[in-house]
Amino acid sequence: MPSSPIRKLVPYAEMAKKKGIQVYHLNIGQPDIETPKMVLDAVRNSNFTVLEYSHSAGNESYRKKLVEYYQSVGIQVSYDQIIITTGGSEAIQFGFLACLDEGDEVIIPEPFYANYNGFAVAAGVKVVPITSHINNGFALPPFSEFEKVITPKTKAIVLCNPNNPTGYSYTRAEMEILRDLVKKHQLFLFSDEAYREFTYGENQVSAMNMEGIEENIILMDTISKRYSACGGRIGALITKNKMVYDAAMKFAQARLSPPGFAQIAGEAAVDLPKDYFTDTKAEYQKRRDLIVKRLNAMPGVFCPNPGGAFYAMAQLPIDDSDVFCQWLLESFEFNNSTVMLAPATGFYGTPGLGKQEVRLAYVLNTQAIENAMDCLETALKVYPGRTL
Amino acid sequence: MPSSPIRKLVPYAEMAKKKGIQVYHLNIGQPDIETPKMVLDAVRNSNFTVLEYSHSAGNESYRKKLVEYYQSVGIQVSYDQIIITTGGSEAIQFGFLACLDEGDEVIIPEPFYANYNGFAVAAGVKVVPITSHINNGFALPPFSEFEKVITPKTKAIVLCNPNNPTGYSYTRAEMEILRDLVKKHQLFLFSDEAYREFTYGENQVSAMNMEGIEENIILMDTISKRYSACGGRIGALITKNKMVYDAAMKFAQARLSPPGFAQIAGEAAVDLPKDYFTDTKAEYQKRRDLIVKRLNAMPGVFCPNPGGAFYAMAQLPIDDSDVFCQWLLESFEFNNSTVMLAPATGFYGTPGLGKQEVRLAYVLNTQAIENAMDCLETALKVYPGRTL
Repeated sequence: MPSSPIRKLVPYAEMAKKKGIQVYHLNIGQPDIETPKMVLDAVRNSNFTVLEYSHSAGNESYRKKLVEYYQSVGIQVSYDQIIITTGGSEAIQFGFLACLDEGDEVIIPEPFYANYNGFAVAAGVKVVPITSHINNGFALPPFSEFEKVITPKTKAIVLCNPNNPTGYSYTRAEMEILRDLVKKHQLFLFSDEAYREFTYGENQVSAMNMEGIEENIILMDTISKRYSACGGRIGALITKNKMVYDAAMKFAQARLSPPGFAQIAGEAAVDLPKDYFTDTKAEYQKRRDLIVKRLNAMPGVFCPNPGGAFYAMAQLPIDDSDVFCQWLLESFEFNNSTVMLAPATGFYGTPGLGKQEVRLAYVLNTQAIENAMDCLETALKVYPGRTL
Repeated sequence: MPSSPIRKLVPYAEMAKKKGIQVYHLNIGQPDIETPKMVLDAVRNSNFTVLEYSHSAGNESYRKKLVEYYQSVGIQVSYDQIIITTGGSEAIQFGFLACLDEGDEVIIPEPFYANYNGFAVAAGVKVVPITSHINNGFALPPFSEFEKVITPKTKAIVLCNPNNPTGYSYTRAEMEILRDLVKKHQLFLFSDEAYREFTYGENQVSAMNMEGIEENIILMDTISKRYSACGGRIGALITKNKMVYDAAMKFAQARLSPPGFAQIAGEAAVDLPKDYFTDTKAEYQKRRDLIVKRLNAMPGVFCPNPGGAFYAMAQLPIDDSDVFCQWLLESFEFNNSTVMLAPATGFYGTPGLGKQEVRLAYVLNTQAIENAMDCLETALKVYPGRTL
């Protein structure tokens, strides 16, 4: 089991804080956006007397409410195609365990969300990365690149859309490439749509709406980012494939039920007014515009403009992103503050890639982002491993 | 992945309810005892504004509070030996994944909590059952029985104490047998102590206090039963073995964090007055005394007196417990009600065992237990597969 590449720097951040240095956390997708009061109040005003196990698939009332939510974003599902999970993490686990056998292979465009790898290892599954590139903003690799690595052991493709860590939002044409691949080779498509609402150009194109592969899709979802409710640990696995659903339910039953309090929160969130997303998206877009502008203004730095989620990948004039990110915490400060970034090496499956790249989560307000960028700009001038 | 033996009858119970039949749920460890108001109020009165990820090991304040709790039950641990998990279920998973490799074997006295098997399958681990018997109340099988099945692949013993499903509370002498086995063969001992407080004779003897095997113990715990907070999904993995702790932390980091709201509940629960357990235990003991008396008064039924937890195993004069339990839901009613039991077959690893046994969870009030026993008594008289 590999260590979490994002969390392994935590002890260095803790040490910096103990020295009195303020650390701007751009390393992790933990937004500073307040959880909507209505969502928290639903839990605070609840009046049950026994905190009981829920149904293993989650409360029926919540699953029925989610049908409304999905309808509102153009996805038609029924409540018995939904399993409420403990965060998106468990949806990924259940998906892998239900669809894949020991020794199977899954193709994932890299850089990718590092924990896919962890859950694959836990399921005995091999991740086969195919590389997307910063030059074209991490667009989907072409059909032929996928076919080069498809073997009889290939069982699935994993896609995160909009993407973590790249922020890339896949176009309809790209989704059709995936559909054709899935159809031709009879694969599963695991579609992680945690950031569905956060796109800054075209709306997200859900895998659930790709015709002809309805039985091949496993949607992995979460309320964490959508409602700034990461700590609730509520997600969902959704599939129209009855066999996959039934297999996933066995794993759901083994762990008894998803968390109780946060299911109440998730159910309440479906009734949030539409302008919640308008406002939240506007805030993220402002932050994206700022961070991308600041990054590209730094000598030797390149940051493609991400179309979605709240992440940006930047190429830096540095020798080694792991060393640099640790150095930022251990040996650097500017105005008694520093910035914590995620080295991109942890997001690549191919060894050696990502050494000049970092991921920045624009989850802090614009003033904090300005300050963090001041730190980074100064740091790049004095970092001993600078390459330009 | 096997289906949950307890949950597979759920559709039949749902059908019975649709016909207007009241179902007494003695099939699952979901107590009717109210979650202490103070515990629920801690969540309801919380005033944070962002539902953030917690530390992957759980909130530091909660872990520090748990040190006090463990001290109060005679167990000395430090907060950095504790990982807060998503229910006891995740503690079992992390324990298996951190300590065992694909193909390893774990010995579990049967009948055992069925989900151990599910989590073992998910970890690629083989469960080797050794049989305990209803005649002596499911006491620990002797040292020699363990040694018969120990192979070079044997890596651990799993013990649930007090036991689910048997209610057996292991004596100090039995715990010393386990200690000697663990020491001699250098095994891990996974100790599931979910029902620690609920013993009706001698106090529970924790594996954490067995001298000379401190590094071999992985304690798997949960607040579910202790505070009637099953739906919170909060447990803990505790170990003094640093390597195991670090390995388990990798899995903890991959799933980011345990549920947020219920950690607040768990932390508050440590401050419950001592008489909470005195009162709760007295209630369970009353129920146990009643159910055991009623069962043993039925012709052809034998139920040993369980020393702990809130389960009783009974031998019934029936052909097949799976058929019988389904028949109770599908084809029987008495005073427009019926009883749901757990067939014991699901708790045995050895095929064919448990066909005359059922597990009864005495999680309902005494009046409901009386009614449920009236149902069972009547049912046994008319069941077509009766053997006596």
